[in-house]
Amino acid sequence: MKTGHDVAIIEVGPRDGLQNVTAFVETAQKVSLIRRLAASGLKEIQAGAFVSPRSIPQFRDMNEVIAGIIALPKVRFSVLVPNLQGAREAVKSGIEKLIFFFSLSESHNLNNVHQTKEASLKGLEVIRRNFSTETPIELCVALATVFGCPFEGYMTTDHILKDIHKIANMGVKEISLCDTVGFANPRLVEEITAACLKDFPEVTFAVHFHNTRGLGLANALRAYDVGIRRFDAAVGGLGGCPFAPGASGNIATEDLVFMFNEMGIPTGIDLDSLLNVSGYLKEILPGVILSSAVYQAGLPQAQISGPKCGAPGGNPPFPTHRDW
Amino acid sequence: MKTGHDVAIIEVGPRDGLQNVTAFVETAQKVSLIRRLAASGLKEIQAGAFVSPRSIPQFRDMNEVIAGIIALPKVRFSVLVPNLQGAREAVKSGIEKLIFFFSLSESHNLNNVHQTKEASLKGLEVIRRNFSTETPIELCVALATVFGCPFEGYMTTDHILKDIHKIANMGVKEISLCDTVGFANPRLVEEITAACLKDFPEVTFAVHFHNTRGLGLANALRAYDVGIRRFDAAVGGLGGCPFAPGASGNIATEDLVFMFNEMGIPTGIDLDSLLNVSGYLKEILPGVILSSAVYQAGLPQAQISGPKCGAPGGNPPFPTHRDW
Repeated sequence: MKTGHDVAIIEVGPRDGLQNVTAFVETAQKVSLIRRLAASGLKEIQAGAFVSPRSIPQFRDMNEVIAGIIALPKVRFSVLVPNLQGAREAVKSGIEKLIFFFSLSESHNLNNVHQTKEASLKGLEVIRRNFSTETPIELCVALATVFGCPFEGYMTTDHILKDIHKIANMGVKEISLCDTVGFANPRLVEEITAACLKDFPEVTFAVHFHNTRGLGLANALRAYDVGIRRFDAAVGGLGGCPFAPGASGNIATEDLVFMFNEMGIPTGIDLDSLLNVSGYLKEILPGVILSSAVYQAGLPQAQISGPKCGAPGGNPPFPTHRDW
Repeated sequence: MKTGHDVAIIEVGPRDGLQNVTAFVETAQKVSLIRRLAASGLKEIQAGAFVSPRSIPQFRDMNEVIAGIIALPKVRFSVLVPNLQGAREAVKSGIEKLIFFFSLSESHNLNNVHQTKEASLKGLEVIRRNFSTETPIELCVALATVFGCPFEGYMTTDHILKDIHKIANMGVKEISLCDTVGFANPRLVEEITAACLKDFPEVTFAVHFHNTRGLGLANALRAYDVGIRRFDAAVGGLGGCPFAPGASGNIATEDLVFMFNEMGIPTGIDLDSLLNVSGYLKEILPGVILSSAVYQAGLPQAQISGPKCGAPGGNPPFPTHRDW
């Protein structure tokens, strides 16, 4: 058995997924969902967001949710925080990794977090300074609309690098490059991720793709080719930005894990367990359509059925999984 | 404007798509569908199959369909043929490109075309010899289950190359490598296509991917990386093999064209026109769900809406399409 995982998959379903579900998911169900995700082998899970209950009522029970999961061993939990108040509440609940989010696009930032980019950068600096002496706190920036914005179109790579420079200059060690509305394509992914990895060797980059126009996994593949090793994904393919017109789900964790597994790239995640989590999602959210292709089609191993209709009898000794 | 297209996209919807639709599509509708596809810029279209009306009733009107399209300029039409009789009928109808199909997997071949691989190879040789002096006839082999079989699992690359050697030895100049049931992954695609391109420089290879487990476009991207320039796709994401359990649709032509367009790789196809063809499909097949993500989500250009909610007024001069 191999040890060490070549890629890290960050489960964002409990945050980016549930954020877009109108129905309130009960606290016990959220806790159960997150515990099941952890049990499938996911090592990092975005558990939710410490935001105003008025802006996202889904997360009004964050303290109770965190209390129900924080003792789980071997899992890093993170939450989104919009400001110092959210950051303080998150840390008080026991969370050791904060995700501060803003948008490369001024218009999208105004729509999404109702402040200018300059104000967002100041907010980031306030959080950073406040926790700079508390060593266990990690700070990650989720940078929205990197690959295009519904209001401003495509960004130049120079523009992107300039903004990342400001973030890196504050000492932020991790940045998630987000395709908030599914505008990315493999060539754009290659250009932007290669430039980021080259210009900021001290920063760890993750990518966050939505499958709006079907290119989510192709974009993830290209990011992997370039050297990215951290990927956001949401179980079942839940998710999307409620403040961006037309945005649809994240790439499904099952589909991403399936791709890497089949390519012989270890993820540390048990796909059968993960597919059972999607089954649980269907129980607690019966109206929601899960866009995961692997959830819908099942695994190849389950489809392989042995010879039929006149083929030589019995199951031949065929490989049911490609052995790399 | 650029001339010459870096990739050739072969529309298989009228064949692989309609073959899986239970309802009979009227002859006039088939002709209209194919004419619309041609008008969107597709240069090669699989128009159907000359098979027994008992095995696939959908194609019982092939002669009338071909009569309605054969005079269209600048389009290469091909049809699937299972044997010499089908080949003769196809050529008589005016078709100049024949596709003979069989499966790398003995069990799948027995299920699909009800004969052994050896018998299929003999059938191919009979067709090849019969038309060897009629120069305008092109012969392509569509090789099923190259990337895995529902009955026999994964094939070794040696096995694949050995069978392709037999086909190439007959003088066949074009082979389509088919992922009949959606078992392929980018690494497998890289291994198999690279080996084929290396060992058979005299053969033109195409790839035919299904999006059963969401990897269709990632597989197409990897095939492109390796050097493949011919791609099968079906408008709307129609299709699948009716004789393989669990198989679902082809990669959608819209999604594939979108990916290449966005990457700056010319296809010669007008995406807006193509999306209108999907709209027409919804008219003639109201019960069928089109799996194309771009058809469902629309183009980014349509989503870009200018600043809102307090952003500086007016539309800024932003790029609405990445200019490579």
